[in-house]
Amino acid sequence: MSAIIKDIEIIKSKTTKINEVDFNDLKFGNTFSDHMLVCDFKDGKWQAPKVVPYQPITLDPSAKIFHYGQSVFEGMKAYKDVDENVFLFRPLENFKRLNISSKRLAIPELPESYFMEGLKTLLEVDKDWIPKNEGSSLYIRPFIFASGNGFHASPADEYKFIICTAPSGAYFSGKVKVLIEQTYSRSANGGVGFAKAGGNYAGQFYPTQLAVAKGYQQVIWTDDNTHEYIEEAGAMNIFVRINDTLITGPTSDRILDGITRKSIIEIAKAEGIPVEVRKITVSEVVEAAKNGSLKEMFGAGTAAVISPISGFGYNDTDYDLPELEDTFASFLKKTITDIQTNKSEDPYGWRVKLD
Amino acid sequence: MSAIIKDIEIIKSKTTKINEVDFNDLKFGNTFSDHMLVCDFKDGKWQAPKVVPYQPITLDPSAKIFHYGQSVFEGMKAYKDVDENVFLFRPLENFKRLNISSKRLAIPELPESYFMEGLKTLLEVDKDWIPKNEGSSLYIRPFIFASGNGFHASPADEYKFIICTAPSGAYFSGKVKVLIEQTYSRSANGGVGFAKAGGNYAGQFYPTQLAVAKGYQQVIWTDDNTHEYIEEAGAMNIFVRINDTLITGPTSDRILDGITRKSIIEIAKAEGIPVEVRKITVSEVVEAAKNGSLKEMFGAGTAAVISPISGFGYNDTDYDLPELEDTFASFLKKTITDIQTNKSEDPYGWRVKLD
Ligand SMILES: Cc1ncc(COP(=O)(O)O)c(C=O)c1O
Ligand SMILES: Cc1ncc(COP(=O)(O)O)c(C=O)c1O
Repeated sequence: MSAIIKDIEIIKSKTTKINEVDFNDLKFGNTFSDHMLVCDFKDGKWQAPKVVPYQPITLDPSAKIFHYGQSVFEGMKAYKDVDENVFLFRPLENFKRLNISSKRLAIPELPESYFMEGLKTLLEVDKDWIPKNEGSSLYIRPFIFASGNGFHASPADEYKFIICTAPSGAYFSGKVKVLIEQTYSRSANGGVGFAKAGGNYAGQFYPTQLAVAKGYQQVIWTDDNTHEYIEEAGAMNIFVRINDTLITGPTSDRILDGITRKSIIEIAKAEGIPVEVRKITVSEVVEAAKNGSLKEMFGAGTAAVISPISGFGYNDTDYDLPELEDTFASFLKKTITDIQTNKSEDPYGWRVKLD
Repeated sequence: MSAIIKDIEIIKSKTTKINEVDFNDLKFGNTFSDHMLVCDFKDGKWQAPKVVPYQPITLDPSAKIFHYGQSVFEGMKAYKDVDENVFLFRPLENFKRLNISSKRLAIPELPESYFMEGLKTLLEVDKDWIPKNEGSSLYIRPFIFASGNGFHASPADEYKFIICTAPSGAYFSGKVKVLIEQTYSRSANGGVGFAKAGGNYAGQFYPTQLAVAKGYQQVIWTDDNTHEYIEEAGAMNIFVRINDTLITGPTSDRILDGITRKSIIEIAKAEGIPVEVRKITVSEVVEAAKNGSLKEMFGAGTAAVISPISGFGYNDTDYDLPELEDTFASFLKKTITDIQTNKSEDPYGWRVKLD
C-alpha cells in the first residue's frame, strides 16, 4: 500500500453550478459540487486518481454493484473558519476504516496517498463549495463499488473509487424520537455490521419506515439474538447518560467503530465526565427512564454530529427524556465542533489544515 | 398491483453478437444476449416496460445503489426442448419472491404483468439465445436497484427494474468440497437473509475467499449465534442424506426460500423418499460422517441445479463423502431437469410453455 502519487491530473469543469446554490438553505447531501475524484481498479491494481467534472457513471447492466451489493463508503466533512482556512477532522481514521470495510467486502485495499492526496486535491479545486455558515459544512462521500461485470456470485475484477462532495446543512430537522427495535436487526455476529458496507443501510430502510409511520425518526438497533442490548442507530453510535455518567456500548463486529464516538469518549474523559464503555441493556434504560436517573440520550456521527434524543418507544410505551438546561450533549457538541471549525485549541491533534 | 399491459414496446438491436458465441463452450453468466427489458419507477409508479438493445446504464454518482446497496434480484432459467419449444420453470414463484425481497428492502413492489409479460416478450425477441445443448440454458437475471439520487440514508425515489439474460453452462466446474463456517455469518435474525438482496452476497465473498484458499469451493453457512445449525450455501439450499432419509433445514428469516429446494422436497416425497424438514446440527452431520450413515450432501439452486458435495471441512478436519453408484442427487437432478426441459411429464404443473 505504498503507492505514491506526485501530481493528480485535474480536468476542470467548463461551467459551475455554484451560483444556483443557496448556501443559507442547505439540505443534507442533495447538492453536489462541480468536481469529483475518480480512481479505477483494473488489471489488478488501482490506477492513478483524477479530478474530473462531476458527471454520470456508465456501467454494464451486469456490473456486480447492481447484483451483489459489493460496495463500501465513508462519510467525512470539511470545515472553513472565518479566515477561509479549510480543515478536515481525523481524515486518516476514515481512510483506515475504508480499508477495513473493503477487506470484509473482498474489495482491494486502496493506497493511503490515493485517498489523502486525492481528497486534498479535490477540496483545493472545489474550495468555494465549502460552506462557512454556522452548522453547515462540506459533506464528503468517498465510496468504492464493484464495476466489473458478470452474474457469477464472486468478487468483481474491477472497482471504482470515487469521492463526491455536497455542501450540507443539518441531517435531522426537529426533535429525534427513537424506537428501540424488537423485531428487526441490522447485523449478525460474524457479519458485516462493523463495515460501512452499502447493504447494511438498505436493510435498515424498511424497519425505519415502520418506525417513522409510528411517529419516530430513527430506530435504535439491538442485538439480533436477544434484542436486549442497545447497539447503535442508523448512522450514529448511541450514548446514554444515567445520573452523571455517560455510557456507550463497546464496538464489536456488529457495530461501526464511529470516529465521532471515540472522539466524544476522549473529550468527555479529558473534561472529567465519568465515561463507561460497556454493554447497555434495554431494561436498564427503561428502568432509568422510569426512576428519573436517565438524563440524556444522544446519537453521535459525522453526518448528524451530536443529535439529542427527545424520547424513545419500547414495548408500545413512550418514554420522554427530561429537557435539561445544561446537557452533556450540547457541551460535547460545542467542544467537538469548535475543534472541527478552528474556534478552539485542538489539544488532541485531530484537526488537519489544508494548504 | 393490477396494472395491465397489452403491448410492450420493442426497440430492436441493429446488430447481433450471437455469432461470436460458442454455444458448446458456455461459462456461467458472462455472455449476454442482444436485448434487455427495462422498466423505471418514477413519479411514484412503475412506468411501462420496454425491450431495448442490451446497453450500458448511466447513473448519477449519488445514485443510492452505489451507497446503500438498495437492490434485489432473481435467478431463473429458460430451457429449449428438441423441437425448439421454450419453457420456464415456476416463474410466478420468482416473481412473488422478488416482491417479497423488495418489500424488505423498501423497494416498491412490481405489478405481476410487468414481470411476466416483460419476461415473455424479452424471451420471444431473444429466442435464438436460448441454448439447446444438454446442461446449458438461458440464465435469466431480473433485478431492481435504487437509481434515485442523494446521500441521505433513506429509500430512493427512483428505481430500475431490468431483466438481462445470459446463455450459460454449469455454475460449478469439478467437485464441490465445502467448509462448514464457524466464524463468519451470512445473516441475522430479523435481518434480510430471506431476501435476495444484493448485500447478502457481497458479505459472503471474503469468507468464501478464505475457504477457497484452504481448498474448498463453497462455504456452508451456520446460524450467527451458535454456528451449530446448518443453514445454506452461497446460492444453494442444502440437503443431507442420512441413511435413506433426505433432510433439509426449515426456511426462516435468515434463509432463502429456494424454488429448487421446495421442488426437490415435493419430488422426493412423491417418489417415496423419506424427507424431513427440520433443523440440522453440525454435530449430527459430523457424527453421521464418522459412523458412515452420512450418504450424501448436495446443494440445490437454480444456477447450480443439484450439486453433489464430495466432502466437507469442520474444525480443521476433512470428511469425505462416499462415492455411491445411485444417488438421490443424480435421481433428483434427472427428475427435475427432465421436467424443466420437457423430457418427461410434469405432474406438478411447474413447466410454463412460451408461445
Ligand atoms: C452505522 C453507523 N454507525 C455510526 C456512525 C458514526 O460514525 P462516524 O462518527 O465515524 O461518522 C455511522 C456514520 O458514519 C454509521 O453509518
Ligand atoms: C442464498 C440462496 N439460497 C438458495 C438459493 C436457491 O434458490 P432457487 O432454488 O430458488 O434458485 C439461492 C439462489 O437462487 C440463493 O441465492
